[in-house]
Amino acid sequence: MKDEFLKVAIEEAKKGYREGGIPIGSVLVHNKEIIGRGHNRRVQKGSAILHGEMDALENAGRLPASVYRESTLYTTLSPCSMCSGTILLYGIPRVVIAENKTFLGEEELLRSRGVEVTVLDDTECIDLMRTFIEEKPELWNEDIGEENEERPF
Amino acid sequence: MKDEFLKVAIEEAKKGYREGGIPIGSVLVHNKEIIGRGHNRRVQKGSAILHGEMDALENAGRLPASVYRESTLYTTLSPCSMCSGTILLYGIPRVVIAENKTFLGEEELLRSRGVEVTVLDDTECIDLMRTFIEEKPELWNEDIGEENEERPF
Repeated sequence: MKDEFLKVAIEEAKKGYREGGIPIGSVLVHNKEIIGRGHNRRVQKGSAILHGEMDALENAGRLPASVYRESTLYTTLSPCSMCSGTILLYGIPRVVIAENKTFLGEEELLRSRGVEVTVLDDTECIDLMRTFIEEKPELWNEDIGEENEERPF
Repeated sequence: MKDEFLKVAIEEAKKGYREGGIPIGSVLVHNKEIIGRGHNRRVQKGSAILHGEMDALENAGRLPASVYRESTLYTTLSPCSMCSGTILLYGIPRVVIAENKTFLGEEELLRSRGVEVTVLDDTECIDLMRTFIEEKPELWNEDIGEENEERPF
């Protein structure tokens, strides 16, 4: 049975996909309650920084350090350098990742700094990302800072 | 004589201070032109993610990887884990930091990944941050994910 918080992160990812965006969702959980949820909004807001995790943290609003330090971040995809750095900035102690097959982020850096990282190998999320990457490879490369091949025509 | 791009980053920091915010500014420079500028907007926008560097990158808009990889990020303060992670995500190869006396970010991580990091020890920026931290220590702690002491009264 799928984790209830992961389900919400996947709902967010699917919402992003339906909006024509990058299908990655995230929720911030404190004391078994969701205090922030969001999804990648590069396309929707023309944003260079609103990855799913960043959007969830932004939607959670300004919080004292003590709240972050008792929270868990759920995300449908392995967090990139930016999102991992943000997890470290705020001292979020636990990260639950649906999958890291389509992109492997900074899991080792997180673990080396004491963050508890759990990877679930969720096939629904793997399929969603594979579909998206096949449909929009250039958008995906842009989101992870990878160069797109020049097209001379 | 002060670097012209650093001057603009300092203008941004001072603008933030005048707005009642956290006085840290940043500019993204490509081919000797400023393509993004910004300042910390935690207070102004109720944001948990708009550090000065993030605001400058967001204001630069969506860019292809090839542009980031030829750019330099100027910032008035040593970049925290979040901002350093973002520099790594986008492969920005050079970071010019006005000072790291009032806060030391992830300079070593950046260097270990091949980023060229220059620290200038700018006294104007040191003074500005010291003044701000003395005036609003709790706001500063919030911004860097540090706990504030509980006040029982």
